Amino acid sequence: MIGKVIVMETFVKQTLLYDFYGELLTERQKQIYEGVVLEDQSLREASEEFGISRQGVHDMIKRCNAILEDYEKKLHLVERFVSIREEVRQIRRAAQKAGIEEIVSLSEHILEEL
Amino acid sequence: MIGKVIVMETFVKQTLLYDFYGELLTERQKQIYEGVVLEDQSLREASEEFGISRQGVHDMIKRCNAILEDYEKKLHLVERFVSIREEVRQIRRAAQKAGIEEIVSLSEHILEEL
Repeated sequence: MIGKVIVMETFVKQTLLYDFYGELLTERQKQIYEGVVLEDQSLREASEEFGISRQGVHDMIKRCNAILEDYEKKLHLVERFVSIREEVRQIRRAAQKAGIEEIVSLSEHILEEL
Repeated sequence: MIGKVIVMETFVKQTLLYDFYGELLTERQKQIYEGVVLEDQSLREASEEFGISRQGVHDMIKRCNAILEDYEKKLHLVERFVSIREEVRQIRRAAQKAGIEEIVSLSEHILEEL
């Protein structure tokens, strides 16, 4: 169970990092990262599709994670965004309770963008 | 008047870009950019302080602007945050009108972070 939570958290974190900084990777890095990390392709499948060894795929993913984490270490934009998202959710809850439709709908729109 | 507005808009844009992506510049680029763009140092002053020609300072600022704009062109994070900020301001106005203190204070906290 704890193992599953960690896998899930790692996946969420990787998805967020990729969502924010993915465009700073090369085209090839993006393709392999999307296949293996986001679409859950196996190393063997990716290895066949991209014509590199399984070890090569593994190293590439590790390298991409390091690049993405390095950007976050410098810019903290995912951190900023996660904290804002939490507060917008609180606003939505409070607006639902108070029945203020305009604020519910504005906060929902923000949550779609975040 | 129009000239002033453009100067102001350019300044706001440069400040935002620097706020988001400044940490991706080198230490030296950051020092010169902060001096000239954010603290309104003259080219002559910066030239003396950093021991390069005025042309060198000018080129450095131009290069930094290009780097920062290039990150924005790829990541669109300033655009995303500016649009969210506008909606959070709308939420604050609506909450003030409705007198919901909890939402006013949450939106003010978000606006400080943005």
